[in-house]
Amino acid sequence: MKVIRTKEEMRRAVRRAQAEDRTVGLVPTMGFFHEGHLELMRRASECDVVVVSLFVNPTQFGEGEDFTDYPRDFDRDCAMAESVGVDYVFAPEPSEMYPEGFTTRVVVEKMSDLMCGAFRPGHFIGVATVVAKLFNIMPADRAYFGQKDAQQLAVIRAMARDLDFDIEIVGVPTVREEDGLAMSSRNTYLEADERAAATVLHRALDRASELAEKGERDPEELRRAVVDTIGAEPLARLEYVNICDNIYLRPTADLKGEILIALAVRIGRARLIDNVILRIE
Amino acid sequence: MKVIRTKEEMRRAVRRAQAEDRTVGLVPTMGFFHEGHLELMRRASECDVVVVSLFVNPTQFGEGEDFTDYPRDFDRDCAMAESVGVDYVFAPEPSEMYPEGFTTRVVVEKMSDLMCGAFRPGHFIGVATVVAKLFNIMPADRAYFGQKDAQQLAVIRAMARDLDFDIEIVGVPTVREEDGLAMSSRNTYLEADERAAATVLHRALDRASELAEKGERDPEELRRAVVDTIGAEPLARLEYVNICDNIYLRPTADLKGEILIALAVRIGRARLIDNVILRIE
Repeated sequence: MKVIRTKEEMRRAVRRAQAEDRTVGLVPTMGFFHEGHLELMRRASECDVVVVSLFVNPTQFGEGEDFTDYPRDFDRDCAMAESVGVDYVFAPEPSEMYPEGFTTRVVVEKMSDLMCGAFRPGHFIGVATVVAKLFNIMPADRAYFGQKDAQQLAVIRAMARDLDFDIEIVGVPTVREEDGLAMSSRNTYLEADERAAATVLHRALDRASELAEKGERDPEELRRAVVDTIGAEPLARLEYVNICDNIYLRPTADLKGEILIALAVRIGRARLIDNVILRIE
Repeated sequence: MKVIRTKEEMRRAVRRAQAEDRTVGLVPTMGFFHEGHLELMRRASECDVVVVSLFVNPTQFGEGEDFTDYPRDFDRDCAMAESVGVDYVFAPEPSEMYPEGFTTRVVVEKMSDLMCGAFRPGHFIGVATVVAKLFNIMPADRAYFGQKDAQQLAVIRAMARDLDFDIEIVGVPTVREEDGLAMSSRNTYLEADERAAATVLHRALDRASELAEKGERDPEELRRAVVDTIGAEPLARLEYVNICDNIYLRPTADLKGEILIALAVRIGRARLIDNVILRIE
């Protein structure tokens, strides 16, 4: 496995692989790997060459957010990536990605200001912009993103589709702890009692899914199930729950087709997100 | 020469050429060709394959602007392109470029709201977005743009640099009529007396250049020369004149290095632009 620091060298490595007719899979990450990341890398192994980008992107953190505190462990990350057969880790400095004079923003309108976007202004502009850059630096055949970040996945799909990037976006199912908590680098922020309380996200989504399976077709009833479940957990504070289509994230009164239920909850220092996709005929 | 209407087919043609190790030159245009466009195509012939995109991009026209009236002559354009050896004309329908649900914008901040941007809100967002799309549909080795549209060229250079597009941006010197008027599809809007008056743009820039050549280093003096020259032409109304660096378009008090003098003038129905680049030691 090779660690690459510059855009130039990274692009050459991808081009070289493709000139030899080898497919390239890209896994964009912010590091501090857990099973969720490793699952993305394993899925990417369906390509001949796997590239993982490891970059804690400053522009997707807002003021007062956890950019400085965001957990980092580069050596451990490299060892983990190597253990699942990754070929290249692209780990640029911020100055390599954002040299002086940088001034361009990619804005996926309508979808960026909802849900997490309402609580994290500018977050999805930062995400869409850095991913557009990564797609041009590493013009892979496929790029892999976790379903856990449902809104991020939807925004990136829209960006790639609208700007005609020739990269297939692959969403990979959320990896969970045994008790159902979605894996996240931010779970490290949880104290022991908070960690126990954090299963409430999954439980709330489960309750809503069960209602839908039993035939409930009123989104307000599903919402109430989520709100009540989170409300019953004293350590948890619900930021939002959104019941919407899974492409444009538009809230829907009509529970039909692919429906996303996504929520964000604050527990202690941590801001946790989770979601479930219902397929309703 | 082949006319292509779909993104899919266009991308395949470019990929095929590159798989055969042939370089590709892209000339993005809105059609209604004149010598300026042909000059871009001739320059692009330094590449093995020349692709011209011909798309009157609705998103770069503001409300009340001339999108509907913009001159079009597809058959004549194709004949002219073929005469200078163009290989492909990419002429998509608006619905091919902007299908339902399209929602992404590429914004080159700071540079998009100055100069023409102040008079045409959203114009450079439309330009940067469509060019990002064209770069992904036709991942050429080089793309050619006219120096006449100096701000457009600067915005596209910034966009390509910031988003790490692997395409060399080539600026091609302005082609002029014998009396100095910069060639433009919009010159067709000029009545006979207005056409005569329109030489005032070039004359104003010439006067400022002469002053600089003679050693004048105060940008206010150059500005005054432009304002006075335009002011002496009763049919002309100056929109702006900007004296700035040629990368970030920041107005400068220090006439040193590569200095852009750019202006926009209204004459009758036409809004005309022109510019000159001074290289000052």
